[in-house]
Amino acid sequence: MAVASPMRDLAAIVGADNVLPGSTEPYGRDFTYEILRLHGVADAVVRPGDAGEVAEVLAWCYDRELPVIPRGGGTGYAGGAVPVDGGVVVALDRLTRVRSFEPHWWRAEVEAGLTTATVSRLARENGLLFPPNPGAPEQSQIGGNVATNAGGPRAFKYGVAGRWVTGIEAAVAPGELVRIGGATRKDVAGYDLRNLLVGSEGTLGIITAIWLRFVPAPEASASVAAFYPDPVSGCAAIGQALGSGLVPAAVEYADAGVLDASGGALEAELPAGARFLVLLELDGSTDEVRRSREEAVEALSDGAISILRPADAAEERALWRWRAGMGPAVTAVTGGRVSEDVAVPADRLVDVVVGVTEIGARHGLPACSLGHAGDGNVHGCFLLVPGDPDQLERAYRCSDELCELALTLGGTVSGEHGIGWIKRGRMTRQWGAVGAGMHAAVKAALDPKNLLNPGKKT
Amino acid sequence: MAVASPMRDLAAIVGADNVLPGSTEPYGRDFTYEILRLHGVADAVVRPGDAGEVAEVLAWCYDRELPVIPRGGGTGYAGGAVPVDGGVVVALDRLTRVRSFEPHWWRAEVEAGLTTATVSRLARENGLLFPPNPGAPEQSQIGGNVATNAGGPRAFKYGVAGRWVTGIEAAVAPGELVRIGGATRKDVAGYDLRNLLVGSEGTLGIITAIWLRFVPAPEASASVAAFYPDPVSGCAAIGQALGSGLVPAAVEYADAGVLDASGGALEAELPAGARFLVLLELDGSTDEVRRSREEAVEALSDGAISILRPADAAEERALWRWRAGMGPAVTAVTGGRVSEDVAVPADRLVDVVVGVTEIGARHGLPACSLGHAGDGNVHGCFLLVPGDPDQLERAYRCSDELCELALTLGGTVSGEHGIGWIKRGRMTRQWGAVGAGMHAAVKAALDPKNLLNPGKKT
Repeated sequence: MAVASPMRDLAAIVGADNVLPGSTEPYGRDFTYEILRLHGVADAVVRPGDAGEVAEVLAWCYDRELPVIPRGGGTGYAGGAVPVDGGVVVALDRLTRVRSFEPHWWRAEVEAGLTTATVSRLARENGLLFPPNPGAPEQSQIGGNVATNAGGPRAFKYGVAGRWVTGIEAAVAPGELVRIGGATRKDVAGYDLRNLLVGSEGTLGIITAIWLRFVPAPEASASVAAFYPDPVSGCAAIGQALGSGLVPAAVEYADAGVLDASGGALEAELPAGARFLVLLELDGSTDEVRRSREEAVEALSDGAISILRPADAAEERALWRWRAGMGPAVTAVTGGRVSEDVAVPADRLVDVVVGVTEIGARHGLPACSLGHAGDGNVHGCFLLVPGDPDQLERAYRCSDELCELALTLGGTVSGEHGIGWIKRGRMTRQWGAVGAGMHAAVKAALDPKNLLNPGKKT
Repeated sequence: MAVASPMRDLAAIVGADNVLPGSTEPYGRDFTYEILRLHGVADAVVRPGDAGEVAEVLAWCYDRELPVIPRGGGTGYAGGAVPVDGGVVVALDRLTRVRSFEPHWWRAEVEAGLTTATVSRLARENGLLFPPNPGAPEQSQIGGNVATNAGGPRAFKYGVAGRWVTGIEAAVAPGELVRIGGATRKDVAGYDLRNLLVGSEGTLGIITAIWLRFVPAPEASASVAAFYPDPVSGCAAIGQALGSGLVPAAVEYADAGVLDASGGALEAELPAGARFLVLLELDGSTDEVRRSREEAVEALSDGAISILRPADAAEERALWRWRAGMGPAVTAVTGGRVSEDVAVPADRLVDVVVGVTEIGARHGLPACSLGHAGDGNVHGCFLLVPGDPDQLERAYRCSDELCELALTLGGTVSGEHGIGWIKRGRMTRQWGAVGAGMHAAVKAALDPKNLLNPGKKT
């Protein structure tokens, strides 16, 4: 298509300053670029200033049959925001108003472009907690968090992003604004189109604003790190902890390969023989946290080599900094990796942890995993030297086998990152013919011209 | 239609004993019968023995263009299970298997016809809690709870039924079984068709089995009842309690009319001048409950006439028995009532409480309300003498005005009961043209012949 004329038309909607050439970076990439070099060139990038402009841009594109690629902070791991086949990127980064905030009633209405960190800070500074913490909070946007139904460690106790959403405003085909829900906490008047938009990765509409709910911030939190000689004893300890009635905020794990890659960054010394880490975060009242930490130590002790209890808040923070650095440390081993975020019933975690290393070994690639053990959510990493096409090909085969393993265990091909572009075809594999048929029927019903982020989430 | 031949065909699927004449009671009614005499006669009632038979029955009906009316325990308040226009009632009451139960991992897979009480008991006897408690637990079925996304008092802290569902098996058009999700706690592979089926009132599919998650049962619970001279001071106290950082399991209220009707059933004496009740339930560890009860008393004391603290478990139970008896006590005043379960942002509760009595007065009917204050969820009751068509007509006008008020305040026409048959048209009023269009498009996509509980949920 000729770009000049659309850019003039779009400028009439959002202003000339807010229409950028389709090749403008970083709008052609997301977090997958680093490893996969996934990159696209749009026909144009537009930055609407409010929800009404988003709807107008969508109407304009829908009328001309131009694909629309909604974009949040660009921190996705599935290529969902990448304009792989042209079209108009609609960036939400100018929609940053807090439309209302009622801390006494634990709620806010915010626009989609607000960063996750800003939302978290708003809550925290008012004695509240916004539980989702999917990572990259200074860059990721709340609209993207909701559009991908982002998770993170605290999802074990607090659920994923969608759980904190009571209402959504979105631009939908053929270019109108709709509001589903609002500040009311309970609503069974219609189908749950709110949760249908949550996690739809921009393929059913462009989320422009969100009614969020919060909870009062817990008074205290504390962590316990337990080290084991192998995944079997570590996973058994997780079962022991959950079976004891503890309800941790987070139940994380890391396997031997991750400990090898990141052990040097732990402030304390990694215990000799440690090949599996279980990391719990407990929160609640001060008394409750003190007691549940003792219970956690007790429950985790069977089979443990050693148990680490941070002595103060500074040690707590250091422990979680170590946890946050594990992903980059793994990447740094060879310079690149292909990762899969499968999830399985939590009691099958051990099968996936062992499976990841076996699959890697079979294809001659170092492999390791870490993730959200309480939710059975594994980030399986297959390490490679960037730019080596043979290793990349083998890593993809590993990914495929890991997804197959997760499905065999009754799990999902994606617990957190979504399908986006790079996992296309996997939703259909997971859902089977009947489910995938329903999925396709819903997409066709709400986006009859297939212009909302086409080719993604399939 | 001629009934004889279908009954033979259906008997070939489910067995002759499990095909009943369409006039068999109680299959023609639900809880709306008592007041509204809403009643229907089906072409046939079938009681399939497993999920496969449900799908076969649906396929048979879909092929012959016969409407299908799924039926759980028949405890709905919206006529959703009533065969108002014939068709085949598919009763799930023979699907009562617990397919799996893993208490250590806080989860179970149960069939749709299991009663809510059975599910709760299963959890409780294993140290777990299944939080939803929508009422009528010995009769209502878990499938119906999920199909209506039922709520109840504890929804304030624990959310509604859908929140405890990780997977659904359903018979969908044109007559196949589908599984969306399963025992895995996190899944973003596809659109959230699980939550789309939750609360769809049998209009998108027939739920046959559910993967549920539980939480460890809290160690203790305690309640506080505070009495106020009017709704304004009572609602201010609720704001005070929530703003203080307390997270009660339940935040209930009852207004003057309800206290008048039910005060005699309170074991203690109703304090003089009490015209508004706030009832909190607190749960957690023993220490935490002790402390938060003190905080609750403190937070609720402003403007209170008196505060009641049950001294022991027996007094606790008596207080909640009193609460559970309020609905029947209100009905008993005149023998009948029309009720609406609107919900609004919680800070607007006072407007609805005052509004209910004003609307009733305007139409010459006694009116009162009670409900789930923390969720802004009001059960507004307009009292009438059953069989008086003029009073019924006025009560309907009251209902309409109450729904209008809720929408004006940014709320919903239904917080708990759903739309069913008796509230048809109200979803469209709430959602507006764009939202209602999306709603209709989803229905048409998943039920192209409009045979799944037709006419409901509109």
